Amino acid sequence: MNRTFPTAVILSFALCGFSFAEPPSDEGKPASSNVPGQAYPKIDAEGRAAFRIPAPQAAKVQVRIDRTYDLTKDEKGVWTGVTGPLVPGFHYYSLLIDGVETADPASETYFGSKWMHAGIEVPEKGVDFYDVKNVPHGEVRQKLYFSKTANAWRRCFVYTPPKYDACPTAQYPVLYLQHGWGEDERGWVTQGRVNLIIDNLIAEGKCVPMIVVIDNGNIGEFRRPQGKDANKKPADAKAASAAIEAGLAESFRPFEKVVIEDLIPTIDSTYRTVPDREHRAMAGLSMGGMQTYVIALKHLDAFAYIGGFSGGGIGIDGEFDPKISHGGVMADAEAFNKQVRLLWLSVGTAEGPKFYEGLKKYRDAVEKAGVKIKFYESPGTAHEWLTWRRSLHEFAPLLFRCDDSSSDNSPASRREHRRGTGNR
Amino acid sequence: MNRTFPTAVILSFALCGFSFAEPPSDEGKPASSNVPGQAYPKIDAEGRAAFRIPAPQAAKVQVRIDRTYDLTKDEKGVWTGVTGPLVPGFHYYSLLIDGVETADPASETYFGSKWMHAGIEVPEKGVDFYDVKNVPHGEVRQKLYFSKTANAWRRCFVYTPPKYDACPTAQYPVLYLQHGWGEDERGWVTQGRVNLIIDNLIAEGKCVPMIVVIDNGNIGEFRRPQGKDANKKPADAKAASAAIEAGLAESFRPFEKVVIEDLIPTIDSTYRTVPDREHRAMAGLSMGGMQTYVIALKHLDAFAYIGGFSGGGIGIDGEFDPKISHGGVMADAEAFNKQVRLLWLSVGTAEGPKFYEGLKKYRDAVEKAGVKIKFYESPGTAHEWLTWRRSLHEFAPLLFRCDDSSSDNSPASRREHRRGTGNR
Repeated sequence: MNRTFPTAVILSFALCGFSFAEPPSDEGKPASSNVPGQAYPKIDAEGRAAFRIPAPQAAKVQVRIDRTYDLTKDEKGVWTGVTGPLVPGFHYYSLLIDGVETADPASETYFGSKWMHAGIEVPEKGVDFYDVKNVPHGEVRQKLYFSKTANAWRRCFVYTPPKYDACPTAQYPVLYLQHGWGEDERGWVTQGRVNLIIDNLIAEGKCVPMIVVIDNGNIGEFRRPQGKDANKKPADAKAASAAIEAGLAESFRPFEKVVIEDLIPTIDSTYRTVPDREHRAMAGLSMGGMQTYVIALKHLDAFAYIGGFSGGGIGIDGEFDPKISHGGVMADAEAFNKQVRLLWLSVGTAEGPKFYEGLKKYRDAVEKAGVKIKFYESPGTAHEWLTWRRSLHEFAPLLFRCDDSSSDNSPASRREHRRGTGNR
Repeated sequence: MNRTFPTAVILSFALCGFSFAEPPSDEGKPASSNVPGQAYPKIDAEGRAAFRIPAPQAAKVQVRIDRTYDLTKDEKGVWTGVTGPLVPGFHYYSLLIDGVETADPASETYFGSKWMHAGIEVPEKGVDFYDVKNVPHGEVRQKLYFSKTANAWRRCFVYTPPKYDACPTAQYPVLYLQHGWGEDERGWVTQGRVNLIIDNLIAEGKCVPMIVVIDNGNIGEFRRPQGKDANKKPADAKAASAAIEAGLAESFRPFEKVVIEDLIPTIDSTYRTVPDREHRAMAGLSMGGMQTYVIALKHLDAFAYIGGFSGGGIGIDGEFDPKISHGGVMADAEAFNKQVRLLWLSVGTAEGPKFYEGLKKYRDAVEKAGVKIKFYESPGTAHEWLTWRRSLHEFAPLLFRCDDSSSDNSPASRREHRRGTGNR
């Protein structure tokens, strides 16, 4: 279910409770996202989640997850119910106690939609790329830094790869990775498991050891792109797209200043980075993808790799015109293709037409203009974290693979980049 | 209010709602512990917290904090109420929606009493030792390590002081710092603000730069010390105390093995520590204080500094006998005083007689036996995080001040220890 951009469809589910046709089943194992010691929610082999909420004084208890389910009260005042089969991966969910939406006390909590949501992890059979495995692990560091442009102390998280401390001369490329609307710098660590995904990729020799920096993009006011006008006749659509681009640029200006003037200099002076564009990537999900396209395409002197996961392009429904869009940076496709090592866009096939068709339309227009863009579709996933975990898992191996044309002349760095595998 | 060890007194408050005599006031500022954008709860100048919960379908809405308050519903279905003046510092709190205890969606969440509690930060006038200040900041690193004794990957947090990366030859002493019952390794970072407290102390030249390691002590089954028998006649009291000690030792054995066999070797091989007892401290709060006394007094070859915050000694009500208690390690007081650089115990004056009198009784008995023990009382605070923030603030400056008798011969380490201040 789309938690990041609520839509009328979702709202209608939320308003009318879904009743169980079948008597609730109670098979399964406690969700790995439960706090220790909590038996419920349980997930069964088909991905159905069983809930059990003691609430003798409540008149109605519901669970909101892929839709809203009414639970059933027994004689002891315990409310139970089982969902339909859920898509694998991480889902935000809520309890509604007599209409009040709260986090399930049985669950860990995750900052999403601007509050500390409950979340449930539905296992994906045979898939372990985001699990803790018996491989060398990097660290996730909480870094406080002073932002002159925001005049405030800010927090970011910095993933350093295995052996970062043990190889004190190695230098590393950096991926700047952003969360979506309603989330913050914790998202990629707790919901996204970025450290485990990169640890596992490095261990398999599938991506080069890199630093990943995750900042808080909630600075300034994000106004969602107004896409309605984009469906008007061509002249109006162009004007609407220009308005969308201008709105995004203005929304993201304070964050752009933080990234370019404060964050990158802080990271480059604190960590052993290779401080040039050929060793710097930016990516983000949903709103973070839009921020990435706005900021990185404006600062190609700073970034050579650009990724949007379920977001990017010109918002979701702007019309791409190579001469106008992104300040005309793609007008000379050949020059752009030479300068930008990777332009990437991804989407879940179950995100709904707005995202799925919108982002594919952008991809088609960009390709038609002769610009190289990699496009990845996550099968069966919605505007949710499994789409973004998979996107990172596909995107990261493509980064910093430009040894032949690299401007990095540091032998230590080249050695580290080439090693690929990370033995403990 | 005591959230860590619920008592009958608290339960009675919880069962009977407290009604407001005065019409609710609505002054104040949003609590700093709210998620961004939430105006409520607000804290006024007297430390009273005002709540505002939209819940038109609920029959009863309460807030449980220092006691349980019934909120009042207005014609729009919004429930409001104001608490009495709250003690400064961090308090866990809950909403009760028709009797279901949940986290307030307006609040950040904190793992306490085994679930993701809401929490509220009540400002303390003129006190900023745990605030983000314009000083150099260390990092908090999430470290995954494999524990052979537990046969599992475990997570700890490692605070590294400012300049840790910038001074690649400096070596640092290490404080192992433990959370209380129902909490985990996140407690000292989120509720305790250990990084800010140590950053500020280092900046003021009040403590030596140190590494702080915070692990998860919830391994094995913690059975609370059964203290009732300790009030019987002397012979029985001795037997009861021995039983308490044996119970604690057994409860904490799995964690003891993790600390001694897995954690310390991991930290010493991963970070630039001074790997000897003179540069190693252990402290903890409540259950973590008991773990500290059990583990560190048994392993004096590993630790020279020992602290219990609202916990330690022989549980809370065991009777100290120098010949028997702690395996008789204090029987020769002079030798003990020479070997142990610091034995520390602290308690909040509002923790109630069980903790306050119990721990003072232990202090008195230890002193009577000729053993040096530092005792700190936190004025006006209960079995809560302000007691523990203050305890850390008093305890940390006393650590690793033994340059004259240090076994550390590393010039880099000595230089770092002596510098004290941390310029950016």
